[in-house]
This record gives sequence, C-alpha cells and structure tokens, in this order.
Amino acid sequence: MSIVTLTTDFGLKDGNVGVMKGVIWRIAPRAHIADLSHQITPQNIAEAALVLARSAPYFPPDAVHIVVVDPGVGTPRRPIAARIGEQQFVGPDNGFLTPLLEQAEKKHLDSEFIHLNRPQFWLPAVSHVFHGRDIFAPVGGHLASGMPLLALGSRIVDPVRLSLPRPQETAGGWLGQIIHIDHFGNLSTNLRAEDLDDCSSLTIQLRDAEIPGLYHTFGELPPGSLMALLGSTGSLIISQVNGSAALTLGAQVGDPVQVTRHSNTR
Amino acid sequence: MSIVTLTTDFGLKDGNVGVMKGVIWRIAPRAHIADLSHQITPQNIAEAALVLARSAPYFPPDAVHIVVVDPGVGTPRRPIAARIGEQQFVGPDNGFLTPLLEQAEKKHLDSEFIHLNRPQFWLPAVSHVFHGRDIFAPVGGHLASGMPLLALGSRIVDPVRLSLPRPQETAGGWLGQIIHIDHFGNLSTNLRAEDLDDCSSLTIQLRDAEIPGLYHTFGELPPGSLMALLGSTGSLIISQVNGSAALTLGAQVGDPVQVTRHSNTR
Amino acid sequence: MSIVTLTTDFGLKDGNVGVMKGVIWRIAPRAHIADLSHQITPQNIAEAALVLARSAPYFPPDAVHIVVVDPGVGTPRRPIAARIGEQQFVGPDNGFLTPLLEQAEKKHLDSEFIHLNRPQFWLPAVSHVFHGRDIFAPVGGHLASGMPLLALGSRIVDPVRLSLPRPQETAGGWLGQIIHIDHFGNLSTNLRAEDLDDCSSLTIQLRDAEIPGLYHTFGELPPGSLMALLGSTGSLIISQVNGSAALTLGAQVGDPVQVTRHSNTR
Repeated sequence: MSIVTLTTDFGLKDGNVGVMKGVIWRIAPRAHIADLSHQITPQNIAEAALVLARSAPYFPPDAVHIVVVDPGVGTPRRPIAARIGEQQFVGPDNGFLTPLLEQAEKKHLDSEFIHLNRPQFWLPAVSHVFHGRDIFAPVGGHLASGMPLLALGSRIVDPVRLSLPRPQETAGGWLGQIIHIDHFGNLSTNLRAEDLDDCSSLTIQLRDAEIPGLYHTFGELPPGSLMALLGSTGSLIISQVNGSAALTLGAQVGDPVQVTRHSNTR
Repeated sequence: MSIVTLTTDFGLKDGNVGVMKGVIWRIAPRAHIADLSHQITPQNIAEAALVLARSAPYFPPDAVHIVVVDPGVGTPRRPIAARIGEQQFVGPDNGFLTPLLEQAEKKHLDSEFIHLNRPQFWLPAVSHVFHGRDIFAPVGGHLASGMPLLALGSRIVDPVRLSLPRPQETAGGWLGQIIHIDHFGNLSTNLRAEDLDDCSSLTIQLRDAEIPGLYHTFGELPPGSLMALLGSTGSLIISQVNGSAALTLGAQVGDPVQVTRHSNTR
Repeated sequence: MSIVTLTTDFGLKDGNVGVMKGVIWRIAPRAHIADLSHQITPQNIAEAALVLARSAPYFPPDAVHIVVVDPGVGTPRRPIAARIGEQQFVGPDNGFLTPLLEQAEKKHLDSEFIHLNRPQFWLPAVSHVFHGRDIFAPVGGHLASGMPLLALGSRIVDPVRLSLPRPQETAGGWLGQIIHIDHFGNLSTNLRAEDLDDCSSLTIQLRDAEIPGLYHTFGELPPGSLMALLGSTGSLIISQVNGSAALTLGAQVGDPVQVTRHSNTR
C-alpha cells in the first residue's frame, strides 16, 4: 500500500487540496492519502518545514510527502523531489526540507535530490499559479505508484536551504527563540533536549515572565500554571496547564527565550 | 478492510493528526482512516463523548475509534481500550465512552474494557505529552490489523464514567439543558424523543425566548423563524430556519431549557 | 478502487462528515474518500457548485461526488443522482450541478439524471434534517460499489438550474463580477480566458482601485502589488503578491468588475 501526505498553505475551503487527491488517484488509485496540515501560515516555508520534520519520520518507509508552500510559483524556482533516508518528498525548491536534511546528516542517512524537469510526468496543461495540482501531485502519484525517483528528473546536489535560527550558549545558560505555537497555545523553542546538556533545573525568561522547569508532565502543577518541559519531539516547550501559554504571555514566533541553568544532573 | 476513526482536540494546523495516521499505517497499512472531529474544545471530554456517541454506531462492525482528549496525559490516568457491541475504542480512561456505554446498557449489548499496560504494543519511546501518537495510535493500529482486544492489556471493569446532566420532569413538562451547539448554530438539548412521552406540541423557554414545536422540517416556517424539532440523533433541538439559533439567542452549552407540554397525542 | 468525494457546508467540528464516511464504508468498504470542502458558506449552493466544478474533472472516471448544501432538507425538493461525462454525482436537486452541466453541454458530453425515489437504498430510518447521512451517503456508497445509476431511481430530465451571473460585453471591454474569494484572498471573477478574446493588456476597476494585467505569474511584480492574471481554472483573477487582495480592497463576492481592454494580440 502506498502512502502520500500533503502539507500546504491552501486552507480547506476552496477544494484545492481535494483536487490534488484526485490527480494523485488518477495515477496511483490505491494510495492512502493523509493531510499533515493545510493551515500553514500563507507563504511560511519555515513553518511547513517544521511540521514536516516532526511528522514524516513516523510514516512507513517509501511514504511520499508532498509539500506546497510556494510563494515562487510560476517563477524560475525549481520543482524538486528527494529521497532522505527511507522517505520521499516533492515540492518547490525553497528550503522546505532543511530541518529533515540536517537531521539526516546528523544520522548519516543518504539523501538524493532531483530537479523535476520532465513534463511528461505532469498534467498536460500546467498553470502559472497552481503547481500543486499540475506538477507536484502527479509527480507524487508516480512516486506512490512505484516509479523510481531518478526517472522523474535530473539529479541535483544543491537544494535551497533555509537559514534557521540557532540557539546560543550564554554565561548562565542559553538564548533561544520561539519557533512554533501549537493549537493549544504551547510554545516550542529551538532548544532541544540534547542542547540542554542534561540540565534538569532551569528558569526561562520570556516576555517578563519567569517560568520554571523542567517538569515532565502537565499534571505536576495546578491548572493555570506556566511550566517548561520537553515536548513530544524533544524540543523545550513552554505550556500553561489546561490553558494557552501563547495567550497568557502574548508570545509570538520569534520571541527570544532566555534559559538560565540551575544545576546539572550529570 | 479495516476502518479507524480519530477524534481529538488537536486542531488541524500542527500535523499531530497526520502523525497519528503515519503510526497507524506502519502497523495496519491497509486501514482506511476517517476524522470525526479535531475541533473538540480543548480538554472537553464530554463534547468528544457526544460526537463519538452520535457517529460510531454508523460505522461498520469492528471499526476502531481512537479518541484523544487527554488533559491527564502523563499522569497515572489509565490508557484503555474497549469493545462495546460491535465497535472498538481506544483512549485515556476519562469517561469518553459514557454515553455509548449507557446506550449499550439500555440495549443489553456486551462490553469489555482493558487497561493498556503492555508497552510492547506502543512506540518504543513514549513521551509524557503525546500519548495519541505514542500509545493510542499504535494500539489502534494493532486492533485494526486484527489483534484481539485482550492481547493488548488486562481486563478491567471500572472505566471512569462522566456524570452527564439529566433532564428533570416538571409539573408542566421538563427541564433540560443545551448540551451541544453545532456548526450551523443549532442547539441540541439533553431531552430525547423518548423522554418527551409522545408530546407533539410544546413550547420551549430559553433565554427569554419562547420557541414553538415540535416541527418536522426546517421548511415549515419562514426563514429567520425559531423552531423546536427532533434532530438527526433523536434529541430535541432548537433551530433558526436558514440562520443560527445560537447567535440569535446568545445561547451557550449548559443553558437551561424549560419545556412546557401542550398536548399528548397518545 | 472506487473514489468518493464529499462537499458540504457542515464544518468539521460536529462529526457529521465522519458519520457520512461510516455510512459509505458500510456499503463500499474499499472506497477511498476525499473531502473537497466542508466550509461552504451555510446554504450557499452556488459556492458549492463552483468548488465542485473546479475539482471534479481532475478525479478518476467513475468517481462519485456527494454534495450536500441542503437548505431544503425535509421539504419536497427531490434527492437526485447524475452522471455527467465520466463522473457521478449525488445530492439535493437545488442546482449544484449547474456549472458542470453547462461545461458538459459545451463539450457535448452526455448526462443523465435520476430522482432518488427508492428508499431500499437509503438508511432504514430517514431523519427530517440530515439526508447527507440518511440518503446521499448510502446512495453514494451504492454507486461506489458499482451499482448502476438507473437502479437507484427514476430518470428525470429537468434538474433544477441556478441562474448564474454572466459577464457582459461593454464598449471598451467587459463587466463581470467577483464570484469567489479563496483562502489567500485571491478574487475570482466570472470572466474566463475564452471570454477575453485574446486580450492580453487590460485594466480592471474594482472598488476604486485600478489593477493592471494580464500578468502570468505572481513573481512579475514586487510583494504587495495588485495584479490581474488567469487563475488555475481559466478565470480572470485579481491577486496581491504575497498578500490578500480581498483584505486590501475590501472586496466581496458579487462586487462588479469593470475590465477595459488595451490591445488585442491576435
């Protein structure tokens, strides 16, 4: 059974996601198709890259992930496809694979990239404004039906990479930033468990608030409390028990997060 | 063909629903997966229970329904699975099965419950904050692939039950409350057709408005009219023809609904 | 593999879409089901018709499209099913097929319509308020499982048609209107490429703004610019580069659009 996922900034009201599924099923009629998100902030490639990097590794080998956040549609930006480890990816060459590629390099996984330059694998008529339907969905359908990646275009070695914000070590700890705010108002930072050097007691300063950590579960403090803990993908997150840390703190993506270390358990 | 449904308060923007599908498909690659709702009000178990109870009976036998509204994630609350009649269920032991269980007991359907206490059927690493991905999706995948319920944990007989608001009979009728407001602004009450004792003519008092009923269809009064009728699941509902009763009345879940009986057709 | 799509004004929070999938899978357990949109403006049949007409042609032959925007549910309006070209359709007889039928007539495609008047193909109990679940989903399931259209009801030749707004030719160009606003705030008009008579240079007047065109891609003007171009379905659209033309112009569906022709490339 082949699996395809879709990540876009299209929203769900206009039928544009559905039409991509129709195109995929014309080529790969047995594919199971899942939506990762269609509520990426319009044109926000970094957000799509983050959602993808958190989700793709949980899918079966050979899953095909189509990602269309494409402010450059119709310009000379390249359409690309890739294999990173066991998974396959399709989208515009705008950096959407950066976090996955960095993870793969840390783990010494193989990757390969192609420029999608063979229109015989696209829809016959390609619009200037909807390559999700006209290029990326048919290419994803061909991959899902078992076509080898290298049949679909020419190999490239220089996919575009985003410049992602890195945390900095400071005298007393680290300086990071908010990189994602989820549906519950939890704040994800770009500090990861492995960055924190086994520090288990810390204080976070964010927008005038001092937030204690690390806790393990939401149940350790009463409802309404702010706490720092490790999120489900290994990031340092700031949460409010049964509430929205984002609303309570007025926090936004990009806000600086100062972490002060109190002890080191190692 | 195995069927899995998902009901959560995760929203659709962060990829958390998609990642559960990836985990399920790794175990049950042929499963068809449907979303029931991911817009349950955060932490509102009763709302999830209601959506589930209205939907599950329409699915094929052996469907697996995964429900993750889980304010207690990471605390000692038990992860459970159940069979009620022909359907299977997975989620945290917080009462989400209460209305289904009450219906089953009325119909003398069998049910059985297990405590999910066998980590070999979960993801290898279990986070403290996302058991939907780490416990409930893999267990749902195993059920969808045909594993027997009792292989996944130990039998229990005391699942948590919610205390749901019951309508009361009054001198002239009944006193109930609003238990759900749908996308159109229709107000569902906890009064059911069978409670109303075949009363076909009644008046509802709600937030200073007097609303006539029972009508059969929206077409019986002109656009803009408020009316009481029986909804698609047998509840007494209050609707505005081509409008939103919720907006017009300013009604909220929990509002008392006074029903006065005018005649009895029996 | 059979394909079913769903288009409704139900929203995604109440489980009503999921329950339709359960009903379909009871009858056609192998069907793949895609959502086109469940965020049609309540009771807006024309919007559903437009989303459907843009999407259905991209689906495989024999796909079954169920469309339930149904302000007349429970009244004597007919439930219908249809075949137009290679595709099948199910819904209330309220005009939702009008644009597809007009396209089919231009292309001399065959179509046939039936009145769904055989309750043996519906759920045993039919509510007055949710025919999506009780009539249209089971009928769609039967079509998806290969039942011939004519088994499900009696042939009719007079499906309801919407009166859609037509553009008018003027002295210097055309007068059209906004017929859809998408998730990005792009404005679709009822002027189509073929109406514009190969005019490649034009100015649009809309809400006091003068907007130049025709451009080919969003990349031709700097971010923030308003531009006219041809959208992915061949309609004249008005967009703002990396922004929302709808918000910037305060535009709404129904707004008049005056197009002045500057040259003719033929």
